[in-house]
Amino acid sequence: MSRLDSFIRRLEAQRACLGRAVALVEELDGAVLELGLGNGRTYDHLRELCPDRTIYVCEREVAAHPDCVPPAELLLLGDMRDTLRWARPRLEGRVALAHFDAATGDRATSLAFAAETAPLILPLLRAGGVLVSEPQIDAPGLWPLALPEGVAAGRYHLYRRSG
Amino acid sequence: MSRLDSFIRRLEAQRACLGRAVALVEELDGAVLELGLGNGRTYDHLRELCPDRTIYVCEREVAAHPDCVPPAELLLLGDMRDTLRWARPRLEGRVALAHFDAATGDRATSLAFAAETAPLILPLLRAGGVLVSEPQIDAPGLWPLALPEGVAAGRYHLYRRSG
Repeated sequence: MSRLDSFIRRLEAQRACLGRAVALVEELDGAVLELGLGNGRTYDHLRELCPDRTIYVCEREVAAHPDCVPPAELLLLGDMRDTLRWARPRLEGRVALAHFDAATGDRATSLAFAAETAPLILPLLRAGGVLVSEPQIDAPGLWPLALPEGVAAGRYHLYRRSG
Repeated sequence: MSRLDSFIRRLEAQRACLGRAVALVEELDGAVLELGLGNGRTYDHLRELCPDRTIYVCEREVAAHPDCVPPAELLLLGDMRDTLRWARPRLEGRVALAHFDAATGDRATSLAFAAETAPLILPLLRAGGVLVSEPQIDAPGLWPLALPEGVAAGRYHLYRRSG
C-alpha cells in the first residue's frame, strides 16, 4: 500500500470514528475536547458534527488555518500535560467526547505520549463519555469499543469511560 | 462540508486521477515527471503504480519522508522554473505522465504558478502524454480529459498533450 493509500485510510478511519463517537454520546450532555489542533481539520469536522456543544481545544502553539482557530476562551494553550492539569477543576466529569491525535509522526512517541496523557484526560470525561484516539491507550476505566465498519483494527481507537 | 471532508475528497480525487492517468498512458513508453515532491505521498503512489517507469522529480528543497526521497540522479533540485528549462534538452518529448501539485495552499497563487510552469512542462510531454494537475491549466496543445467517476469538476484536472 502506498503512503497515499495509507494516509487516505487513516483520514477515513479518523472521520468514521469521530462520526461514530458523536453518535455514541448523542444522549449525553457535555463538552467536546480536541487534544491537538494541528491544521484544524478535525476541529472543523467536530464543530460541524456538534454545533451545539462547547469545544475546548488543547494546543501547544496554534498553526491552524485562520478559519479553524477556536475562540480564545476555549483554547488551552501550552503543553497539554500542563493545561489538562489546569483544566481539571474546571472540566472534571464535563467532557462527553474527547479526541486525541498526538500527530507526532512516530508510533512509539505517540504511544508514550498517550500513556502519559491518558491519566490527565480520564478525569475530565464523564461516565459513558467516549475517547477517540489515534494511538492505542491502555488505562483503567477506559473500555475499548468496536470500530466502525471498514476501519482496520489498530488504525484508530474508540474507548468508553466506565460509569 | 468540513475541512476534513474536503481534504479527504481532494486526496481521493488525486488518487483517482493518478490511477486514470496511468491507465491512459499504458500503451505509451516514457518517463513519469512528478512536479513537486512534498511529503512524498504521491511520489510513493506513482512508484507503486509505475514500477517500470523512470520517475523524475522536481522539488525546491527535499522535505519528504526518508523512504520517499528519489535517487539523486532523478531529482531535479531547485525552482522548477529553472530546472525544467535545464531538463528540456534531456527530457523533451520523453515524458508520458506528469503530475503537477503546486501545493501553495492558495488557489490564485497555484493558478498563476501553473500558468507560468505549463509552457515549460508541455515540451517534455510526448504526444498523447497525460498531465495530471491540481490547478486548472489553460495552455495550447493540452486537451482537457473527462475526470474519473466521483471526482467533482474542478477538484483535479487531467489533460492530454495533442499529437
